[in-house]
Amino acid sequence: MTMLLSRRTALGAALGLAGGRLFTPSSGACAARFAMLHQPGIATPPLPFLYFIAFDLTTEKRTDVAALMQRWTRAADALMTGGSVPGLVDSGEAEGLATKDLTLTFGFGPGLFTRDDKDRYGLAARRPAPLADLPRFNGDQLVPAHTGGDLCVQSCAGDPQTAFHAVRILARLAYDIATPRWVQTGFAPDFGKGRTPRNLMGFKDGTINPDIRDPGIAARVLWASPADQPWMQGGSYLVARIIRMALEHWDRTKVGFQEETMGRQKRSGAPIGGHGEFEPLTLKQTDRDGNPITAQGAHARLGAPEENDGAQILRRAYAYDNGLNYTAERWPPWRQGNEFDAGLMFLAYQQDPRTGFTKIFEQMSKFDMMNQFTTHVGGGLFACPGRRPDGYIGQQLLEM
Amino acid sequence: MTMLLSRRTALGAALGLAGGRLFTPSSGACAARFAMLHQPGIATPPLPFLYFIAFDLTTEKRTDVAALMQRWTRAADALMTGGSVPGLVDSGEAEGLATKDLTLTFGFGPGLFTRDDKDRYGLAARRPAPLADLPRFNGDQLVPAHTGGDLCVQSCAGDPQTAFHAVRILARLAYDIATPRWVQTGFAPDFGKGRTPRNLMGFKDGTINPDIRDPGIAARVLWASPADQPWMQGGSYLVARIIRMALEHWDRTKVGFQEETMGRQKRSGAPIGGHGEFEPLTLKQTDRDGNPITAQGAHARLGAPEENDGAQILRRAYAYDNGLNYTAERWPPWRQGNEFDAGLMFLAYQQDPRTGFTKIFEQMSKFDMMNQFTTHVGGGLFACPGRRPDGYIGQQLLEM
Repeated sequence: MTMLLSRRTALGAALGLAGGRLFTPSSGACAARFAMLHQPGIATPPLPFLYFIAFDLTTEKRTDVAALMQRWTRAADALMTGGSVPGLVDSGEAEGLATKDLTLTFGFGPGLFTRDDKDRYGLAARRPAPLADLPRFNGDQLVPAHTGGDLCVQSCAGDPQTAFHAVRILARLAYDIATPRWVQTGFAPDFGKGRTPRNLMGFKDGTINPDIRDPGIAARVLWASPADQPWMQGGSYLVARIIRMALEHWDRTKVGFQEETMGRQKRSGAPIGGHGEFEPLTLKQTDRDGNPITAQGAHARLGAPEENDGAQILRRAYAYDNGLNYTAERWPPWRQGNEFDAGLMFLAYQQDPRTGFTKIFEQMSKFDMMNQFTTHVGGGLFACPGRRPDGYIGQQLLEM
Repeated sequence: MTMLLSRRTALGAALGLAGGRLFTPSSGACAARFAMLHQPGIATPPLPFLYFIAFDLTTEKRTDVAALMQRWTRAADALMTGGSVPGLVDSGEAEGLATKDLTLTFGFGPGLFTRDDKDRYGLAARRPAPLADLPRFNGDQLVPAHTGGDLCVQSCAGDPQTAFHAVRILARLAYDIATPRWVQTGFAPDFGKGRTPRNLMGFKDGTINPDIRDPGIAARVLWASPADQPWMQGGSYLVARIIRMALEHWDRTKVGFQEETMGRQKRSGAPIGGHGEFEPLTLKQTDRDGNPITAQGAHARLGAPEENDGAQILRRAYAYDNGLNYTAERWPPWRQGNEFDAGLMFLAYQQDPRTGFTKIFEQMSKFDMMNQFTTHVGGGLFACPGRRPDGYIGQQLLEM
């Protein structure tokens, strides 16, 4: 369930082949270049169901956090191999399930290092620079109750009961140390092998994801830099955003307008004026009047590396559906009433959010035509460290 | 996608075989014994994902309701056969999905007949007796925002995106006539063919469901009585209850106590003192001290037909998971904080809720040891009519 980032090539190749991918350090020697495993759920193939949970730490002791991470790592190793957690009576609801696939990915939020300007656990000096608080973006409507968190767990599984079962056990193990802050579940149904899934807007989502099977791309885009904190080697940074879609509004627009907004064709996923999904975007082409055929404010343009000095992130998004909530429409005829509380649970992994998500979303939050239909209502920023094969997640940070 | 209740044996057999089951009238002639189809989603095999939605009617005209049901029936027929809805640009998110399975089941709540003592649509005289308002049960904590509704749609599918896609289209078709009131999604993951699924308490759930493959049982337990309203022939009554489980509390109890509470063994599903899941409950057996081995307040006992004058209902329950909400625990040490808002979306079909759900739950709501761990927080009561093969759902009611 893990992948190795190591100089020990034989072991690395073995584990790497088992996981389908092998990453090797991109350059140079580094004092911290001990053997480190990547956590699963970052570069491993996405599983169809998500249970994402953020926790607030309630303890005042660093040793409690270390004990929790040790317990969680051991539990995760057991759960991901279909076993039960030593010393704990299992709640039983996953026993006999047809699918066992599960990845558990753990992250540390800014609050582990500093909260209310206080160095809670003596770790502030080791807060990695890429874990800088995200700026407030144009249009942000982040609800505090669904935002932030000191710790996070991304649980992905073949069915929702398995994903929830794992989190429920982890939450039990956190009793008296950390308390659940927010949750967002999600789903990414099966559109067939190798085919890009469609999000709730009906468009293919994920076409331009970087090809992290290329170790050079993964080392540059996804994994923490060799210059990052030693405890982050083999790790990655997660930006989570709960992005509500005004589906009732979207559904009442014409497909031509939707395509202009998206910068892609709806059925095929091809660029505007193009034919195949994987053709390059038509960013420079103009029509006979000299207007760009992909609109300046098109979503695909604003997200493209070409328009962001090459910035790339690895998106692992899920659709989310929270039922209904009471909404005042922001489109004619400005009704008020219950509307679908659904959209995208955006999860993106990257080497550095400052040059990844923030770089891309800075422009997007201002100019994306899609912003008429989407609102960021929650989320968080988390450092997901690597791990020594014989250690626990976060050990090098928490025991320093 | 439908099943026939008809005197036209040839057609009935053909459609019945296609659907896997054929029901024939249990007795006697009846003026209303025209050919009627059962709606799918009642006796058809359950699909793993649920999107349940209740609507409030906002129109004052019966003809609007009739037009809506006509539109909904046509749309449902198209969607359930994998087609798109005539005259509507599809939102597209289900295009290319690997699974196409979908059942849509429509129901009428008491509010279609009477609201605030007003006969809104001139239908009050045709309100069927089994659609009597449910009594307030002991312990009910029904939240108005998640309770009731004039219309309901039960959308069940092979994945959550298909189930939601269908509802989203139906909600568009209801614009200006009905508005969404509450939603509850659910899941019933795959435990293997023919095996009883486990609910979030970790126990097998559904062991004693009546065998509706037996036409006599289905006619007695499930389908509206021949003496019921003509427009309900071929139909059934749905009781929906959102049952929150105090999972944090449950998980801290010993398995032995859980089994005593449930009246079954956790791993096997066997009765207390028994060996196999499908053995009869040990309702009369006593231990050497003369105490019943299945506790008087055990959940399985209180739900058993033997303890309820033979009352039976067809349960089609789903697990639900709404993330977290802020909860004051009702067990030591009485903490307050975010806890899992999860449990059971209980859906039960029956011939008459007065002699079905109400009969059973009357005792259960008072004496079930399980009530320490469960709270009914929402739900509704709906009449799900049959349908003429060439007509729309509710036509005989709405055009009378």
